[in-house]
Amino acid sequence: MLLLIIDLLGTFAFALSGGLVAVRKQLDLFGVSVLALTTGMGGGFLRDVLIDATPPAALTNWRYLAVAILAGLLTFAFHPTLGRMERAINLLDAAGLALFCVTGTIKAMDYGLGPVPSALMGMVTGIGGGMIRDLLAGRVPIVFRGDLYAFPALAGASIVAVLNYADQPVWLAAALGGSLCLVWRVVALHRNWQAPMPTGSSSV
Amino acid sequence: MLLLIIDLLGTFAFALSGGLVAVRKQLDLFGVSVLALTTGMGGGFLRDVLIDATPPAALTNWRYLAVAILAGLLTFAFHPTLGRMERAINLLDAAGLALFCVTGTIKAMDYGLGPVPSALMGMVTGIGGGMIRDLLAGRVPIVFRGDLYAFPALAGASIVAVLNYADQPVWLAAALGGSLCLVWRVVALHRNWQAPMPTGSSSV
Amino acid sequence: MLLLIIDLLGTFAFALSGGLVAVRKQLDLFGVSVLALTTGMGGGFLRDVLIDATPPAALTNWRYLAVAILAGLLTFAFHPTLGRMERAINLLDAAGLALFCVTGTIKAMDYGLGPVPSALMGMVTGIGGGMIRDLLAGRVPIVFRGDLYAFPALAGASIVAVLNYADQPVWLAAALGGSLCLVWRVVALHRNWQAPMPTGSSSV
Repeated sequence: MLLLIIDLLGTFAFALSGGLVAVRKQLDLFGVSVLALTTGMGGGFLRDVLIDATPPAALTNWRYLAVAILAGLLTFAFHPTLGRMERAINLLDAAGLALFCVTGTIKAMDYGLGPVPSALMGMVTGIGGGMIRDLLAGRVPIVFRGDLYAFPALAGASIVAVLNYADQPVWLAAALGGSLCLVWRVVALHRNWQAPMPTGSSSV
Repeated sequence: MLLLIIDLLGTFAFALSGGLVAVRKQLDLFGVSVLALTTGMGGGFLRDVLIDATPPAALTNWRYLAVAILAGLLTFAFHPTLGRMERAINLLDAAGLALFCVTGTIKAMDYGLGPVPSALMGMVTGIGGGMIRDLLAGRVPIVFRGDLYAFPALAGASIVAVLNYADQPVWLAAALGGSLCLVWRVVALHRNWQAPMPTGSSSV
Repeated sequence: MLLLIIDLLGTFAFALSGGLVAVRKQLDLFGVSVLALTTGMGGGFLRDVLIDATPPAALTNWRYLAVAILAGLLTFAFHPTLGRMERAINLLDAAGLALFCVTGTIKAMDYGLGPVPSALMGMVTGIGGGMIRDLLAGRVPIVFRGDLYAFPALAGASIVAVLNYADQPVWLAAALGGSLCLVWRVVALHRNWQAPMPTGSSSV
């Protein structure tokens, strides 16, 4: 029950960020709804299609659909207010990232993948929604452009995969992996840390 | 037999619109063919991958491939003429939209999805090809930018899903849902209706 | 064993081209790695999802992951040097294209697809990675813009599909199809052949 509430909160935070990007790109009501939906549920969706857990859970559980669409409609109606709450939304988003990279890794291992691909699937679950959002909105995914977002997700997912592979209890793996991802991401936000860029180019 | 002909006509109309976008974006013969193919068959393809009806019907029925490629080659050769027939192509496109949202919804329900995800899959079948076309051509999907296209498809698909769920005959569900989608879309084209935009932005 | 080495070399060449595009687009370390990975393994991935051979081999064989990531890290560190080796990389890339269109076609036929969709899947295996690379980097796939890349792949894959369908030995089909693709591509590179453009537009 607690897990479901946290999961829905993460979906909600992701969906808000998708809706805000859509509003900034001047998309219409449908575009705002689709970006909210794909950002909130796209990571899990991508993972489920890749590991062949179809039909994806996202399609068969109406709660996620409802939460994501609600976030889209709220963004459509109240985007000036939500745009000013960016710090709070970023924190919720970091919590969603931590949660999704943990649950994504565990689900991939349950489907029989080894620890390395499972950690990658955990990262995909965390960052996939935002990548789909950016592609649909016609911009290069921000996760590629210096924003320190993927490495915390990959680190958290790797911890979960390794501990799980070493037969440690799931709660321990989830707590350690999730905390690492969350703390790293929040500190990166706070201090504006950037991912390394190739020599000769400057962060945009 | 009648259904197959209508289905092929819808695929043909969608493929023409894909080919025309490719020509306007100065793509080569291969690009025009791929955009015709993905626009004509992309919606059904996306739906089949999502509901796990793989290998997608599009890959195993040569008629659809042939019709879509033919539309691409025709566009490549005769695009100045076809560009002037935009009104007729738009009407065929509306008919394809109505048809695809009906058949997509019914197929999703046959695969055991509930009425809400089935209606969404019906909409995806109708609009997915055009979305893939726009992403491949490097532009934000026009279905997100004020063009009233997705709501008629969703409305038609929802009617089909609800009536089907209430055990009404399939022909009745198909006729009512398809008509609603077709009429709404054609009137929207005629009167240039736009989807709602967020406050503070203007339709592009 | 020889096949595995060639396959890994092809993946490596594709991954290098993905990393170089990412560096030119000023992506960060994560972006360079993802573009190397998706370019190297995206074609096989796409094919496996489409023909329902999931979980994709790419996820379950660590060698491919390791080779692609290594290529990404090398590009990140040494991109000025690699950028000057473009001719050699283009030759490796042509070899990868020839190899992937052969193996992709054979795998699709093994999964029960007919010769026409199998040839298409072979082409997708060859060109899919580069298409995903371009979409993630925010540009229209170069394979659509006059670069003669898809037709050699389709021709090679078609030869494999036809000979395989006619019960000829696999090695003969592979040798003929692969050679055609390789020679055509290398000559096209050398003489700067372009794919046909629609009348009224000029190659970009």
